[in-house]
Amino acid sequence: MKVYLDNAATTPVAPEVFEAMVPYLKNEFGNPSSTHSFGRQAKGTIETSRRKVAGLIKAKPSEIIFTSGGTEADNMAFSVAINELGVKRIITSEIEHHAVIHTAEDVCKKNDLEFALVKLLPNGHVDLEDLEELLAKSDKKTLVSLMHGNNEIGNLLPLQKVSEMCRKHKAYFHSDTVQTMAHYSFDLSALDIDFITGAAHKFHGPKGVGFLYINNNIKGLPFIHGGSQERGLRGGTENLYGIVGLAKAMEIAYEDLEAHQNHVQGLKSHMIEELRKNIEDVSFHGDITPENSLYTVVNVCLPKTSKSAMLLFTLDLKGVACSGGSACTSGSAKGSHVLEGIQADTTRPNVRFSFSRYTTKEEVDYAVGVLKEAFEKELVD
Amino acid sequence: MKVYLDNAATTPVAPEVFEAMVPYLKNEFGNPSSTHSFGRQAKGTIETSRRKVAGLIKAKPSEIIFTSGGTEADNMAFSVAINELGVKRIITSEIEHHAVIHTAEDVCKKNDLEFALVKLLPNGHVDLEDLEELLAKSDKKTLVSLMHGNNEIGNLLPLQKVSEMCRKHKAYFHSDTVQTMAHYSFDLSALDIDFITGAAHKFHGPKGVGFLYINNNIKGLPFIHGGSQERGLRGGTENLYGIVGLAKAMEIAYEDLEAHQNHVQGLKSHMIEELRKNIEDVSFHGDITPENSLYTVVNVCLPKTSKSAMLLFTLDLKGVACSGGSACTSGSAKGSHVLEGIQADTTRPNVRFSFSRYTTKEEVDYAVGVLKEAFEKELVD
Repeated sequence: MKVYLDNAATTPVAPEVFEAMVPYLKNEFGNPSSTHSFGRQAKGTIETSRRKVAGLIKAKPSEIIFTSGGTEADNMAFSVAINELGVKRIITSEIEHHAVIHTAEDVCKKNDLEFALVKLLPNGHVDLEDLEELLAKSDKKTLVSLMHGNNEIGNLLPLQKVSEMCRKHKAYFHSDTVQTMAHYSFDLSALDIDFITGAAHKFHGPKGVGFLYINNNIKGLPFIHGGSQERGLRGGTENLYGIVGLAKAMEIAYEDLEAHQNHVQGLKSHMIEELRKNIEDVSFHGDITPENSLYTVVNVCLPKTSKSAMLLFTLDLKGVACSGGSACTSGSAKGSHVLEGIQADTTRPNVRFSFSRYTTKEEVDYAVGVLKEAFEKELVD
Repeated sequence: MKVYLDNAATTPVAPEVFEAMVPYLKNEFGNPSSTHSFGRQAKGTIETSRRKVAGLIKAKPSEIIFTSGGTEADNMAFSVAINELGVKRIITSEIEHHAVIHTAEDVCKKNDLEFALVKLLPNGHVDLEDLEELLAKSDKKTLVSLMHGNNEIGNLLPLQKVSEMCRKHKAYFHSDTVQTMAHYSFDLSALDIDFITGAAHKFHGPKGVGFLYINNNIKGLPFIHGGSQERGLRGGTENLYGIVGLAKAMEIAYEDLEAHQNHVQGLKSHMIEELRKNIEDVSFHGDITPENSLYTVVNVCLPKTSKSAMLLFTLDLKGVACSGGSACTSGSAKGSHVLEGIQADTTRPNVRFSFSRYTTKEEVDYAVGVLKEAFEKELVD
């Protein structure tokens, strides 16, 4: 049995998304910048996709900038904040995705900006009192960058509350929403925020395409120089089929959002219950209460064993695909900066399981069985 | 009849390329950074593609950095040149693609670098004597950026000669090879150059994917911050199917390169001949001798008419897709910066026709017929 429980890293493309992309890979291949009929058709397709995406999150079409993915979108947000908005201070947290934390560190160093890290509570949430204090203590133009749903431990940020806090102190607000886009509903007509991001491959769309939402009040300078595509922010021929796939994937996701949420939260709760029943001394990183945690992610803290290096390998051999943390860092030898950031006990091994709407109870049960067996046989000290 | 003669803007995806991509859009969807079997399979696919691409141009696999396209690759080259190599002067030309000229202008302004434009000869070629003088007159660390095949007028740069000149004066050399990659053979074991670029959609591969070749002697700093993908230069989950498509498209192109070249050059020569026969006072921008000009592009200078604004519209109505210049700028009201750069007579209308290996003689004849009729009927003063 092969069980894929690493949907926070990437998800399979939905069959309907593939079907939607095919015509643009086969026949309708025009360059959206060309003025002839092939080009106009391609341009029309992109603008229809943009309207669709904008509509699903109650934004305006002109607020959606298609990119090559979530990482590029995060990088672009920082570029606009610094080069266009003149931000002089960045407040972020230790448990952001590297697309944010590395970018923030780099732009602060290069542009001599102030760099501040907000404190974290023991359960992995951002300490909002500390954030308020940080915001209050300086009148430098500030960008707050805090992710919506943490990709490793699943903690959710109260976006509305942080938005209000930022506005009160006249700070700009960016949130990496890559893990929550098309998994939670967004109403950008009601939520006052400057930048959010999405990556299609996290919600059953294609890899290599994502978007940045930029609040209409903000005008941007080019991030990638070239032609005048994407409001001049991103030169280069648009990834036509990718954009079509992204829009289709979002559309499907939002069609049955509540059903998906209930299904997946059910799996997560079931897994937590089964792990508690079957593995002694198991616990979970971050806040796992449904209202404060991504329903798609659970990060399991397992019993100490001298063979913990073998854990993921053992699971993989038995056909269970899961991860120790973010896929983007799993090639490196370093431990998870997120678990370190929340001062978790990293002497104990951990596994992140992440689910999708295609995941079944049988798959979860199989994974729990494999884990139980591993701790009873292969990983015994 | 619908005739697509705008292949310098973008090309249709080859059916074999589509077929090669399908498995990665359907089943093999792992994140190449994941360490489990799904991830390792994806990683293997990317590295196989990288070896394939490198082999076709006699580079080393580690010299190929996959990007979201040619524009990003050009931007990345400038970023590495300035941030890693410490370049203090850029020499480029007025007739570069906007992905180069806009980037060069921007980085020079932001980093207070010297910006120099090399002179052009009346036939559109770079004045190599002037380049030599520019190189000789300063010992500032210099990047020369000159494109291999001009996307509007087709002029080819003698890469080997410019490379030798750059090495003699210890300058770095970048060439935007987006129009020539997979249309001409490259031997990077013999050609000493620092950066060249490719965009899959210019050679019957998918949009949204390209690559930057960086000479192995150069280490790069991140261009897009995030995970450690692509030698740390470009964070973000890789566009798996895009990369597979790019490698397949390049493989097919190089399988029968000479046959494609002969077929397309035949069409171009035929079109030039027919236009001369059928339209009075026709001429051609740039150098059209086969050894000095892209076989895929011809830029036609037509008789003066007060109705020249109707020209592309008329052709489009009759089903002929072609362009006034680069697709990337055709949305804007400005004229071609390339034709201005070579001081062409821009009071006369011009059309760029560009061919692919799928173009037929019948299509060329149809386009010539439409153009002839237009100048005999619709566009008469």
